[in-house]
Amino acid sequence: MNLLFCGDLVGRAGRDVVVERLPGLRRDLALDFVIANGENAAGGFGITQKICQELYQAGVDCITTGNHVWDQKETMAFIAGDPKLLRPANFPEGTPGKGAAQYQTQRGKKVVVINLMGRLFMDPLDDPFHQIEELLSTYRLGGNADAIVLDFHGEATSEKMAMGHLVDGRVSLTVGTHTHVPTADHQILPKGSAYQSDAGMCGDYDSVIGMEKTTPIARFTKKLPTERLSAATGPGTLCGIFVETDDRTGLAKRVEPVRVGGRLSQTMPQVQAAAKLATA
Amino acid sequence: MNLLFCGDLVGRAGRDVVVERLPGLRRDLALDFVIANGENAAGGFGITQKICQELYQAGVDCITTGNHVWDQKETMAFIAGDPKLLRPANFPEGTPGKGAAQYQTQRGKKVVVINLMGRLFMDPLDDPFHQIEELLSTYRLGGNADAIVLDFHGEATSEKMAMGHLVDGRVSLTVGTHTHVPTADHQILPKGSAYQSDAGMCGDYDSVIGMEKTTPIARFTKKLPTERLSAATGPGTLCGIFVETDDRTGLAKRVEPVRVGGRLSQTMPQVQAAAKLATA
Amino acid sequence: MNLLFCGDLVGRAGRDVVVERLPGLRRDLALDFVIANGENAAGGFGITQKICQELYQAGVDCITTGNHVWDQKETMAFIAGDPKLLRPANFPEGTPGKGAAQYQTQRGKKVVVINLMGRLFMDPLDDPFHQIEELLSTYRLGGNADAIVLDFHGEATSEKMAMGHLVDGRVSLTVGTHTHVPTADHQILPKGSAYQSDAGMCGDYDSVIGMEKTTPIARFTKKLPTERLSAATGPGTLCGIFVETDDRTGLAKRVEPVRVGGRLSQTMPQVQAAAKLATA
Amino acid sequence: MNLLFCGDLVGRAGRDVVVERLPGLRRDLALDFVIANGENAAGGFGITQKICQELYQAGVDCITTGNHVWDQKETMAFIAGDPKLLRPANFPEGTPGKGAAQYQTQRGKKVVVINLMGRLFMDPLDDPFHQIEELLSTYRLGGNADAIVLDFHGEATSEKMAMGHLVDGRVSLTVGTHTHVPTADHQILPKGSAYQSDAGMCGDYDSVIGMEKTTPIARFTKKLPTERLSAATGPGTLCGIFVETDDRTGLAKRVEPVRVGGRLSQTMPQVQAAAKLATA
Ligand SMILES: [Fe+2]
Ligand SMILES: [Fe+2]
Ligand SMILES: [Fe+2]
Ligand SMILES: [Fe+2]
Ligand SMILES: [Fe+2]
Ligand SMILES: [Fe+2]
Ligand SMILES: [Fe+2]
Ligand SMILES: [Fe+2]
Repeated sequence: MNLLFCGDLVGRAGRDVVVERLPGLRRDLALDFVIANGENAAGGFGITQKICQELYQAGVDCITTGNHVWDQKETMAFIAGDPKLLRPANFPEGTPGKGAAQYQTQRGKKVVVINLMGRLFMDPLDDPFHQIEELLSTYRLGGNADAIVLDFHGEATSEKMAMGHLVDGRVSLTVGTHTHVPTADHQILPKGSAYQSDAGMCGDYDSVIGMEKTTPIARFTKKLPTERLSAATGPGTLCGIFVETDDRTGLAKRVEPVRVGGRLSQTMPQVQAAAKLATA
Repeated sequence: MNLLFCGDLVGRAGRDVVVERLPGLRRDLALDFVIANGENAAGGFGITQKICQELYQAGVDCITTGNHVWDQKETMAFIAGDPKLLRPANFPEGTPGKGAAQYQTQRGKKVVVINLMGRLFMDPLDDPFHQIEELLSTYRLGGNADAIVLDFHGEATSEKMAMGHLVDGRVSLTVGTHTHVPTADHQILPKGSAYQSDAGMCGDYDSVIGMEKTTPIARFTKKLPTERLSAATGPGTLCGIFVETDDRTGLAKRVEPVRVGGRLSQTMPQVQAAAKLATA
Repeated sequence: MNLLFCGDLVGRAGRDVVVERLPGLRRDLALDFVIANGENAAGGFGITQKICQELYQAGVDCITTGNHVWDQKETMAFIAGDPKLLRPANFPEGTPGKGAAQYQTQRGKKVVVINLMGRLFMDPLDDPFHQIEELLSTYRLGGNADAIVLDFHGEATSEKMAMGHLVDGRVSLTVGTHTHVPTADHQILPKGSAYQSDAGMCGDYDSVIGMEKTTPIARFTKKLPTERLSAATGPGTLCGIFVETDDRTGLAKRVEPVRVGGRLSQTMPQVQAAAKLATA
Repeated sequence: MNLLFCGDLVGRAGRDVVVERLPGLRRDLALDFVIANGENAAGGFGITQKICQELYQAGVDCITTGNHVWDQKETMAFIAGDPKLLRPANFPEGTPGKGAAQYQTQRGKKVVVINLMGRLFMDPLDDPFHQIEELLSTYRLGGNADAIVLDFHGEATSEKMAMGHLVDGRVSLTVGTHTHVPTADHQILPKGSAYQSDAGMCGDYDSVIGMEKTTPIARFTKKLPTERLSAATGPGTLCGIFVETDDRTGLAKRVEPVRVGGRLSQTMPQVQAAAKLATA
């Protein structure tokens, strides 16, 4: 199965590049399933129901989130009615929405997406290392799941790598989000799971983590209150990670970054099957 | 001028890959100056005088550090006598060693290296955003410096990007260190400075930030004391960033990642001049 | 029932003042039950089996702890065999020892002690606000418990006060520990539970939180490594909180600080019943 | 000289108790100078020019602040024109207002007030341990200052006690603010300076650090966004610290807490001179 995970969409720049590029990527990469982290899609702060619909129409099959999930007031109301929108599973019991779900691809494959949040340098939610064990006793790769993708939304590389190794062999992909910068450490871990510390954002990289840069710089240099942050509006780069899974085991056969549009160095996996299909 | 900056060397795996590969890189990339962050070179914790010598002999021209600089007791004694070893400039007044220095290349070019530490999610040193202004009023690109490289050792991508933009046009390269994971956001910023949020470590990437993975995983899952962390011993990847500067302005003409050895995807800039020299 | 809770014992100074004064306090305050936080009893770092015995013999009925509980290696081995020694209940499942227990006083009253750790500015354990609900559905004041004492080991006053109000009416006393400074906000909350943000340490107050002051000052001023911290050795002040509970409801009728010995201003509740008993 | 320092005024409850009680305290305690921390005076968030005037009229001679100083937009505009209003001295250069000033009492004595902010668990300002050295080389007790009061606004008791000892013998009083809970560790340190880790707030103690308690409790238990915090409106306790200085040395002869009004246990120094004056 061919999967694509797109990192935190930040504002219009992030949404535009995803909406514009995703249809082509679905075709060129022969994608079976697409996940995008949408926690900053609405001007940098949260996500709205309208934006969710826009992303689904562009070809996103599941939206994950993170610490910004509740920034838009409406989210708490509509999340329970939207099975494609996840929030970190380790919010306390009773939190609206859910943190993991199973989806079916057009070809009938079962994809499980899990969303968890780290705790190092972040507001402490419930223990993600405990929760992942419970979730992975429910969802079993090669059993009731053809692929399992874990979006581990966190700050610290140590926590992300520890999680990646902990679930190595039990998920198809562990991918970090939240830092808004893509990492170049994508690899298949020893037991067969793909891993990348951070997918990076989909957004304008002439910015401070996707936000117009003047205000953040002022905050660091002056330590005084500033106006609200606003999303940067230059051309966005779509940053994502492509994984080809083994249909038999659900483990990763291949993991490669995708970076298209905007300022960052461009990179795109070459997918043979897709090429063949395209010429057929 | 052609510059290479290598991220945090972690333990023997990190030292070995640098010592082994650097001579070839100096030749193939026609390098004029090589900087390496050595804060984790001694088993993951600090650096010794002997390791410094080993790295200089391998072709490192300057060693920067970070929060781990004092992990080896001897460092405080020998740093003042080693002009090639820097510690973050924003330690309080009276701290042994220095945080910025000017070096001369074999071709007579002046390279300034500045080492600063971020404060977000880290022990608060003096204000790096203030200190960089003082340093950049001393060292002027295109004036008394042919190239200026800033190693901004920090945790948070927001702080690193803010710094990168603040000094854009006034340095050749701002490169982050400390997270031990290379980022794929290398770019030339609008005013001409090269930028990368983190160079990544030189070390074994089948690990938790370069340390043998069992112990860190246990810390996250059990919250109990463990044995000391020890550096992972598998084959290391050298992670660095290559910058070609404009001899006239000192700004960046080109910035590309270097990843050789070990587990990570391999990448190497193609340098024409070097190719020509090699065949001449 | 008359209860005394003594804050973190720090090193020999803390142990000495408790061992010396507690027998007199048990008599003068007609104490039914005595709890002491022992997380720093062994030279400032953890607690040993020998120290536990010393404290039990001096009249301590139950020892609570906190983030320093595992500083002495032996603790993990002996804690399961010592029903009077607690560690924070919100360590992950599988942690040795337990975080809450029911004890019987000499007069046959049932006292429940609960130990939890806060998460603000501390290593994140499991959610204490969730866990207290589970514990208080097991232990019910006026039901299976004649008194319930909660030691909430934490840094931030906001988290402590929030906890105090959350359990108001359901415990006899919520008392904070960990800051090593006694607070003067002891009060009976609106629904009848006694509260104090921090009991303060039992230790030498000519110090930095109980440790010899030169080294901590050097750490703050120089940002360089120092020798290990060692407990200050001047005369200790016993800092504790005295609560008289209503035998019918288990709620607090009276809450007053105890400070005896050492440098701090001295204060001692006047207990009529005890005076009468003593003269009888 | 007789000095009173009142901790963070929180909202109307804090202002009311200070305005009501201060005239009597000035008389009964024969006060020469009164300082109050006003960072939460305006509904819990910052301070306005109108509130400053109200406090000056009630008998406050100097207002210190902390991390909330800029919460009200107008403060940045009027602070430069108000010599009695201080902000932490360790904000970066160029910050409006000042962090230390010398005042004259009605009897012609010179009182210096210094306001600094800690960095442990707080936004990192410039190094307060460095800055205090500069300030204390300008202001010398027994030289150009008859009394020096340091308001060290911080979270961690370790940082506050380290500061207290560092300046012991060079100030009349080091008093902490920011935690909104009074500590009972007031003492005269070995070299003669009075010390208290936190003055506590002037505000309603049936609250979470002065704010209406429902919302803060919800934040801790649910980890979801809530309405804005609002100041609690029950009767306030004035929490302060009284110091009598030696007119010759400027050091402390006596230090005692003041707690009047509201829920906390009441305490008031007995001042002979004042008693005599009153009966004269
Ligand atoms: Fe994000
Ligand atoms: Fe995030
Ligand atoms: Fe490092
Ligand atoms: Fe580091
Ligand atoms: Fe403690
Ligand atoms: Fe503690
Ligand atoms: Fe405050
Ligand atoms: Fe504050």
